[in-house]
Amino acid sequence: MSNSLTLTAVETVACCSPLVREPLSAEQADPLSPLIKAIGDPVRLRLLSLVASHADGEACVCDLQDAFELSQPTISHHLKVLHEVGLLDRTKRGVSVYYAVRREALASVAALLGGAAS
Amino acid sequence: MSNSLTLTAVETVACCSPLVREPLSAEQADPLSPLIKAIGDPVRLRLLSLVASHADGEACVCDLQDAFELSQPTISHHLKVLHEVGLLDRTKRGVSVYYAVRREALASVAALLGGAAS
Repeated sequence: MSNSLTLTAVETVACCSPLVREPLSAEQADPLSPLIKAIGDPVRLRLLSLVASHADGEACVCDLQDAFELSQPTISHHLKVLHEVGLLDRTKRGVSVYYAVRREALASVAALLGGAAS
Repeated sequence: MSNSLTLTAVETVACCSPLVREPLSAEQADPLSPLIKAIGDPVRLRLLSLVASHADGEACVCDLQDAFELSQPTISHHLKVLHEVGLLDRTKRGVSVYYAVRREALASVAALLGGAAS
């Protein structure tokens, strides 16, 4: 049975990635590059993953701090960068700020590179 | 008929992306973040796409220059960055250097974000 989940990643990129299929225009590249740049940092990549995989898909700084040997202000700064480019939503409840991954933003990056939406 | 290519990108990221499914470790994030950082720039993102979609999957600076209002040294610098992180192979033939996308490197980024290889 044919199922694209059985394709290897290399085959998927080779056949389906918009990035590989035809030249990207500046209009396509410009809005996505800040999102990609924001996760081109190991701490931010891990923060995004930690938030996404946390219970109910959201987390506050206090939930995230134990995973890093970093101060809370440093973690808050990285969360702010991810929020500003549109990869994280933030909601204030009581004294805490909760972050959730904007999956459609992450999906647009994934679709560009891996072709999931094409 | 079930076919994952019919999934939307959001569904694919939500169900399959390793980034979303469980917290990434530093060991997973560290080797990929330089590759992601390198394409977090609209010129480099477009260069990667231009090279990949060029005839025979390879291109020299002279093939790429017309797409940008940038000098040849600037384009060469961006190509060097993409080569140094392992996203482009380079081969010298005669007086020209030809670049080709290392699809397995691009695939490893796509797989992390979009889950194609999981």
